[in-house]
Amino acid sequence: MELWYWPDLPGRGEFIRLYCEASEIEYTDMAREQSADALVEHMHELQGRRPFAPPYIVDDEVVLGQTPLILQYLSDKHGLGSGEMDVDLQLFQLQMDIADFVEEVHSVHHPIAHDLFYSDQMDAAFEKAAYFRAQRIPKYLIHFDNAIASSGGPFTLGQQWTHVDTSLFQLMEGLDYAFPNYMKAMQGSWPHLEGVQGIVPDIEPLAEYLASERRIEFNEDGIFRHYEELDDQ
Amino acid sequence: MELWYWPDLPGRGEFIRLYCEASEIEYTDMAREQSADALVEHMHELQGRRPFAPPYIVDDEVVLGQTPLILQYLSDKHGLGSGEMDVDLQLFQLQMDIADFVEEVHSVHHPIAHDLFYSDQMDAAFEKAAYFRAQRIPKYLIHFDNAIASSGGPFTLGQQWTHVDTSLFQLMEGLDYAFPNYMKAMQGSWPHLEGVQGIVPDIEPLAEYLASERRIEFNEDGIFRHYEELDDQ
Repeated sequence: MELWYWPDLPGRGEFIRLYCEASEIEYTDMAREQSADALVEHMHELQGRRPFAPPYIVDDEVVLGQTPLILQYLSDKHGLGSGEMDVDLQLFQLQMDIADFVEEVHSVHHPIAHDLFYSDQMDAAFEKAAYFRAQRIPKYLIHFDNAIASSGGPFTLGQQWTHVDTSLFQLMEGLDYAFPNYMKAMQGSWPHLEGVQGIVPDIEPLAEYLASERRIEFNEDGIFRHYEELDDQ
Repeated sequence: MELWYWPDLPGRGEFIRLYCEASEIEYTDMAREQSADALVEHMHELQGRRPFAPPYIVDDEVVLGQTPLILQYLSDKHGLGSGEMDVDLQLFQLQMDIADFVEEVHSVHHPIAHDLFYSDQMDAAFEKAAYFRAQRIPKYLIHFDNAIASSGGPFTLGQQWTHVDTSLFQLMEGLDYAFPNYMKAMQGSWPHLEGVQGIVPDIEPLAEYLASERRIEFNEDGIFRHYEELDDQ
């Protein structure tokens, strides 16, 4: 399977990488083996089957974008779901909620336009960040915390981890990176979610990945960015 | 099947209504039969299975939010897909792209916070709308136009319409309502998409729905809102 994503930032691609690594699904991280230019060229060649944006995978006949859809596809293909349709739909739904939240995280530092620099939309970002911290982070994290709690924990499927757990881990790591003051002040507010964040790195093949050079650090080209002024308490 | 969505605006719920009406899938529009308060109360009672936001459906054991997931679930359940996995995945992906675009449409008039009034974020909205018209609308609409073109048209599956076509119809209707000057100026730029917009209302059960009182008009409580200053050419 080929994974295509920007090579120099964790971004949405990292949600796919983490799940593949944890599940030992083999993949080639194409743009990291080649270049960002190769990704742009590859997208161009896909023409009518071109996904709207990376990440996307190529798996024989399947060319597929949209992070939650890729994760659900991989889970189904490798028999890693719950085996019950209504439960798998709940997991898919949660993964889509995560994707919505990730888009909101990005829009905090890019409230006006994707194609403008942060420095050109700082005033709006500052205003937005205050609402984001006060309203949106708690609303989403309580939602995810409730979902884990209702399974009995420690994972969203009880004893079995799924793509939702690896994604929630990355989400919490990203928030800790981007909003360290806020997240520290709120510590203990979503205990089940903090539990998932704590135990996902113990999944054995994932521990190895996280310690490797393949794991890309959060940085200010990605979705989770640390700008002190947006984490003001 | 129960559909739960805000009773007084088309919003995301209308994408579900249109598909059900076109496909003659029976549903009860619960909050329109009862009230917005009944929706809030119902969500509260769902506890750990509560979707993040309306619309959601209740279909026996299945409680499901996320518009694209609901549409794909209904398409699968009623055997309305292509019958080929990779093609159905493409349709699902396109439906998720539509949902992303719908979120961007909403963020044009709410760039700072969902919970603030438009009048409290007009300056940022004005700035954002210029980029949205210049960059985001063409980027998305060309993407959808290409997807239809690659099937040979007139629908995204050639001769067969799917949930993607009813959603693209609603998307185009919404953009015509919200940005009439822009859309008129751009007419002819996405001919396949305009084609879908033109023929979807001919799907027989849908024509009846569109002419009925059940069809909710676009308004300034919804996602597609017409504010003249955001459509400035």
